[in-house]
Amino acid sequence: MAGTDKTRPSTVSGGPVFILVEPQLGENIGMAARAMLNCGLDRLRLVKPRDGWPNDSAVAASADAHAVIDTVEVFDSTEDAIADLGFVLATTARPRDMTVRVLTPRHAVREMADIRATGADAGILFGRESKGLRNDDIVLADAIVTAPLNPAFSSLNLAQAVFCLAYEWRLLEDETPGDELAVPKATRPANKDELVGFFNHLESELDASGFLRVTEKRPVMVRNLRNLFERAGLTEQEVRTLRGVVASLTRERK
Amino acid sequence: MAGTDKTRPSTVSGGPVFILVEPQLGENIGMAARAMLNCGLDRLRLVKPRDGWPNDSAVAASADAHAVIDTVEVFDSTEDAIADLGFVLATTARPRDMTVRVLTPRHAVREMADIRATGADAGILFGRESKGLRNDDIVLADAIVTAPLNPAFSSLNLAQAVFCLAYEWRLLEDETPGDELAVPKATRPANKDELVGFFNHLESELDASGFLRVTEKRPVMVRNLRNLFERAGLTEQEVRTLRGVVASLTRERK
Repeated sequence: MAGTDKTRPSTVSGGPVFILVEPQLGENIGMAARAMLNCGLDRLRLVKPRDGWPNDSAVAASADAHAVIDTVEVFDSTEDAIADLGFVLATTARPRDMTVRVLTPRHAVREMADIRATGADAGILFGRESKGLRNDDIVLADAIVTAPLNPAFSSLNLAQAVFCLAYEWRLLEDETPGDELAVPKATRPANKDELVGFFNHLESELDASGFLRVTEKRPVMVRNLRNLFERAGLTEQEVRTLRGVVASLTRERK
Repeated sequence: MAGTDKTRPSTVSGGPVFILVEPQLGENIGMAARAMLNCGLDRLRLVKPRDGWPNDSAVAASADAHAVIDTVEVFDSTEDAIADLGFVLATTARPRDMTVRVLTPRHAVREMADIRATGADAGILFGRESKGLRNDDIVLADAIVTAPLNPAFSSLNLAQAVFCLAYEWRLLEDETPGDELAVPKATRPANKDELVGFFNHLESELDASGFLRVTEKRPVMVRNLRNLFERAGLTEQEVRTLRGVVASLTRERK
């Protein structure tokens, strides 16, 4: 267990352990570390990394994901790397010659969370870039995880596979609204009084210019214009800008 | 619009267009192409790639994602690259100085699908590795997409950002069961007759060996053993193997 420091505090995030089995390229280890920290995860274990550990190209590719890359644990076998875990998943394509539960990443993270809620620890195995996990490693897992990707081109880059699982874990308890209006601190959404003030200003100028001269069409045209500006979700600052625009345009025309 | 061939058929997948604005590293373009094809998408556009196009390291990193990398379209400006699109999203962190709709990736792909269902085409802008999208590009978009990641470490690798959106698009209409038992073609799940045959075999041997000799405990022990094997979801082949195991163990003991 070279590189392992049993004295370090276990985890910041409380998330599952990510275990790369015999990773070949340091760059992929680094990108995996970055992807994990992107998703708030920091427990990375390596089984016999081909180029040893520490690895300069892993550090370089990690984009300063120190919380992950500086606390990597290295093991001599998959058995050792998962010895303390009560639930283990193996990321691999659907095997042809094995009877096994196949989970989607989205389902897999829910199951990991449920198991961790009982007090057990959980981890995910990722295989070598070239050939994936060996069957002897897969049988150590409780289930396999297969992302439902393009069947004609399903082999993910190692760091993408790590991101896929880390991202699903991150979103499991995420409550970010799917659709939200971000407004700079210097301003705020316009209130209806300000909006109607602008509408009245615009419509009175359009009455003066003759744009709304056809009486029977006026209500529809006014409604369409108001609707367009309502839909934009204007800020107070933007309403002032628009009033300035109308004033400027009418000034030039006179 | 160097490299653009207007005569080629538009799209295989019918998915949205992915647009990399001023990508710097060929390797990232290649990994982005691979991630797209992993998710069944093939419409990749580049705006002023730093190292020109075609790019050998992009091809090398694409892992033979020819359907994407061989049909890349190159543009001189973001305006040109999105001219034919009715709905455009910009991937970027939440801006401080702009009033804008912020969508999660999961919500964004739903909205793109809805808009495409009306007949309009949709695309997603991804910025430079070093500095992301310029504000002048962001204002061309209908909304921005921000993945709800670790706020302290939210900057995704370019190919990871592409994968994130491509993956969400892929899963939008995916109906793969979250949890499924994969059984090799050579066998099938055992039926109850086969299972009970095995149970009776095991229990009679355990009666003979004295393991079940305490009469009042026998029903519970039998139930626990049956439960354990039921839970494993055994195949017909595995039941035969287990009967062989029992036969072999009892043979050795006699």
